[in-house]
Amino acid sequence: MKNADIVTAIVTPFTPENEIDFSALEKLTNHLIATGSTGFVIGGTTGETPTLTNDEQLELYRKFVQIVAGRAVIIAGTGSNNTAATIALTNEVSQIQGIGYALVVVPYYSKTSQRGLLAHFSAVAANSKVPILIYNIPGRTGIVMENETIVELAHNKNIAGIKQCTSLNDISFIVEHTNDFLVYTGEDPQALSAKELGATGVISVASHLYGAEMREMYTLVDQGNVLDAASIMRKLQPKMLALFSYPSPTPVKAALAYQGYLYNSCRLPLVPLTSAEEDAVLAALELVGGHA
Amino acid sequence: MKNADIVTAIVTPFTPENEIDFSALEKLTNHLIATGSTGFVIGGTTGETPTLTNDEQLELYRKFVQIVAGRAVIIAGTGSNNTAATIALTNEVSQIQGIGYALVVVPYYSKTSQRGLLAHFSAVAANSKVPILIYNIPGRTGIVMENETIVELAHNKNIAGIKQCTSLNDISFIVEHTNDFLVYTGEDPQALSAKELGATGVISVASHLYGAEMREMYTLVDQGNVLDAASIMRKLQPKMLALFSYPSPTPVKAALAYQGYLYNSCRLPLVPLTSAEEDAVLAALELVGGHA
Amino acid sequence: MKNADIVTAIVTPFTPENEIDFSALEKLTNHLIATGSTGFVIGGTTGETPTLTNDEQLELYRKFVQIVAGRAVIIAGTGSNNTAATIALTNEVSQIQGIGYALVVVPYYSKTSQRGLLAHFSAVAANSKVPILIYNIPGRTGIVMENETIVELAHNKNIAGIKQCTSLNDISFIVEHTNDFLVYTGEDPQALSAKELGATGVISVASHLYGAEMREMYTLVDQGNVLDAASIMRKLQPKMLALFSYPSPTPVKAALAYQGYLYNSCRLPLVPLTSAEEDAVLAALELVGGHA
Amino acid sequence: MKNADIVTAIVTPFTPENEIDFSALEKLTNHLIATGSTGFVIGGTTGETPTLTNDEQLELYRKFVQIVAGRAVIIAGTGSNNTAATIALTNEVSQIQGIGYALVVVPYYSKTSQRGLLAHFSAVAANSKVPILIYNIPGRTGIVMENETIVELAHNKNIAGIKQCTSLNDISFIVEHTNDFLVYTGEDPQALSAKELGATGVISVASHLYGAEMREMYTLVDQGNVLDAASIMRKLQPKMLALFSYPSPTPVKAALAYQGYLYNSCRLPLVPLTSAEEDAVLAALELVGGHA
Repeated sequence: MKNADIVTAIVTPFTPENEIDFSALEKLTNHLIATGSTGFVIGGTTGETPTLTNDEQLELYRKFVQIVAGRAVIIAGTGSNNTAATIALTNEVSQIQGIGYALVVVPYYSKTSQRGLLAHFSAVAANSKVPILIYNIPGRTGIVMENETIVELAHNKNIAGIKQCTSLNDISFIVEHTNDFLVYTGEDPQALSAKELGATGVISVASHLYGAEMREMYTLVDQGNVLDAASIMRKLQPKMLALFSYPSPTPVKAALAYQGYLYNSCRLPLVPLTSAEEDAVLAALELVGGHA
Repeated sequence: MKNADIVTAIVTPFTPENEIDFSALEKLTNHLIATGSTGFVIGGTTGETPTLTNDEQLELYRKFVQIVAGRAVIIAGTGSNNTAATIALTNEVSQIQGIGYALVVVPYYSKTSQRGLLAHFSAVAANSKVPILIYNIPGRTGIVMENETIVELAHNKNIAGIKQCTSLNDISFIVEHTNDFLVYTGEDPQALSAKELGATGVISVASHLYGAEMREMYTLVDQGNVLDAASIMRKLQPKMLALFSYPSPTPVKAALAYQGYLYNSCRLPLVPLTSAEEDAVLAALELVGGHA
Repeated sequence: MKNADIVTAIVTPFTPENEIDFSALEKLTNHLIATGSTGFVIGGTTGETPTLTNDEQLELYRKFVQIVAGRAVIIAGTGSNNTAATIALTNEVSQIQGIGYALVVVPYYSKTSQRGLLAHFSAVAANSKVPILIYNIPGRTGIVMENETIVELAHNKNIAGIKQCTSLNDISFIVEHTNDFLVYTGEDPQALSAKELGATGVISVASHLYGAEMREMYTLVDQGNVLDAASIMRKLQPKMLALFSYPSPTPVKAALAYQGYLYNSCRLPLVPLTSAEEDAVLAALELVGGHA
Repeated sequence: MKNADIVTAIVTPFTPENEIDFSALEKLTNHLIATGSTGFVIGGTTGETPTLTNDEQLELYRKFVQIVAGRAVIIAGTGSNNTAATIALTNEVSQIQGIGYALVVVPYYSKTSQRGLLAHFSAVAANSKVPILIYNIPGRTGIVMENETIVELAHNKNIAGIKQCTSLNDISFIVEHTNDFLVYTGEDPQALSAKELGATGVISVASHLYGAEMREMYTLVDQGNVLDAASIMRKLQPKMLALFSYPSPTPVKAALAYQGYLYNSCRLPLVPLTSAEEDAVLAALELVGGHA
């Protein structure tokens, strides 16, 4: 996992009838591994997981393990705002052979206290067969998990890291105050700066489309070529923002459909882009070639 | 329902073992009806509904109908960020005799578009046997449902109203641009101003403790006595804020436990107030007498 | 001053050559008094005061006293983010016969502490011949003056009140915790609710255009007719928002120019509305008749 | 100027009687040049410039030119929210031999439009003998200057660059979409990431105290040693934040007074730190040695 620096938060492809499309999933996964992804979040926000039943989720994870077949690290989403349900699902998922980590989101909507967050994550970690990663995304959860809370949880041996969607100041603080702790930014536009500040890497949506460029960028940083890495980053940045110009993952699904990797299907409460929205997104993404 | 102006978003009492405490629920409900509540939201955010299983939720609603026994309007929470699951639960709940409305929250966490919101609520409304109320609370859901979206949904005959937790400007706009549409503020400190701007009333946490004062305040407004109503409001306001000084409903549960109406129990991810926090809250609430 | 409930923050009319247009000022002032303004802020934000020299400011105030001729209360702006300069100007302005109050804005840009604010306002008040009003507008100043600071300053005998541009919660708190203290909302959309919560009234931009309607609304409240007052308010509210849809006072100046009260001139860094912007604003304002 | 990458926004030392202390200014300047500053902003926000009279400002700039004596680039603050006054002062300052650039802040408080900003900066640039730098700091000015506005102004030959206090996303955009344009972050915690994204450098408060460390950090980046640069940055970051834990520049003045470089004096509306505040700041800064 130390080597998984570009981790794609992979979409869940659906058929036109809105069933999980495992054939598309396999094709897409192979493409992403070929273009530089060394890890995956399956069943994350980008995977529209709130719309999956528990049974679908478990089937998805079992089949994804077979598709990846050891070629990349697998992180499986198991969190919700119900602690008891999160414990149960995490325990079940963590017993699937091949799952590396469980990704447990900060309980959304309920706006508990920092003490409540400590209790929640400690309880979930105690019941998981694999280490967990915290997923801290205040823009969706309505609550800020503070740096001090994160540092305290980092001492738990079964809490291995964090996907952080806040500021680079927080990323810097967490890196400095933890040991052996995976720190991912979940914000694509921070992909370069987070790595340069010492983070592990990025859990990315953009890597569905720009994996090769992101891989090259990270290689340049490792070689000390800061200027050329920056040049790539500055060109990717508006495209990364375009992927969130409409509710994610609908823009990336539209792009992947355009490239032929999947059907442009999603589940309510999300709706596919209108034709005009799709045109705007595709123009901003400047996609060329790359068709499946 | 037109007459339900003070609607208590009632807590779900738990036993020390964290089972639903129906005996406490009955005692509390009777007290609230006696102190001015003419309606209830059961299974709302204040009811810690994310921590209830579907079976618990249905049992809670069935028993609550028996407890209320026609003495007040009942609004039952049925929403989530999974449209299919919301449709199924709303349909099931709406068949319980005695439920007046289903309260359907704006899908949290998923940050869909306004089009997605229209599709979500239209689909849920089409599958409900009772009218639904929209619950718009951006501070928890991470998404703003815009006034124009609300006005469009208000034309749906099976969408009867809204619980709105934004600004009084929005309340004013919605009242002005809808007909026969119930408009509740979900912000206790807006209880007076919202009513004076033409809203139906308030869906309240504070009415667990200050129902009599709120009833008096509303009566004064109906009598045109603006000054005395304001005087009550200004005194209640800091107490209303104190009920949200820690994650709700933990402050109101601490206060109700102090008054003897229930055990001070809640479910993870919420945790009861510490002793110091409880002292601070009780001091701010200035509770006197009123013990069960 | 207790009787000044609708206070117009009057624009500074300029000639096409961007000199102060005293003739237009007189015509406008007479119109505003006739339509219900019982007080004025002269040399406030709406008056583009940052663009006036000190000499212009003093001339403006002296002539305005003559124009008003005792028919309304006059509040003259004297604040800046330089304490020494504010003391000097306030002292000078306060010696003009006919000025009722000096309006002293929270020092913008400098982001001082609450202690700094206490020191600033105490020093200015100590050097003024007339009582001062605090002007608290975080959206422009970049700093929040806290309620506790306001309450402490309210004990100063030469600090007579506040123009508050924050929330109704703050208005309610200030009214409840002060005595003999003038509390004005500076937010037009709060004009009704602030009064109903016990505030003195509103310092208004909208009253340039809708003074008669606002006067009627306030009279209705005084008569206990809450419903009809609300009906007026709900209709005014989108127009009030339209006056801030572009940098104020450019929309109100465009409207007053359309009505014939002044030239549509303003000083840099403000620029007049484009023709398209003006069309949008005038449409939203639904101005009829009322030409000078 | 291309070589000025660490630019100190130097404080204005005051005597205990609150007169400008030129002797302290000289001592401090020499120290800063010795510890890595290659440029200065004189008369900026950190210099408490709103509290200086125009005469003081001009004297300060003239004497500072003599003190620096060609050893560093000098950027002199000239902006305000009065366009006419800004034009006049910029014109006057720009005639002082030795001033490299005029720093013109986005007009605060007045909240003009983007068109207004274009007009303001174009007019000031047209009247300056030296190129100007834009100073974009929404947290103080109450207004966002948009990236598109900046890019348009960058085409003006007399507008040479920007001090930007927003996000790294904006820094990246501006660097990518301008040519021969100086891009400084004004946020110390962005000092490393901004440079690595291609910005010119930082206009800094922290360099008063940590110039040597910042110089080493920048040298490491130039050598491609990203990891060691990050290590320095992560350790500096909490200290940089501490310098803004109270109204700036009062923390840095307290630290410099502790080190013996100046008196701990400032002008209203700022007030010196209390003794307890000073202890907290000095502890966070971990100052050792370095006494003047």
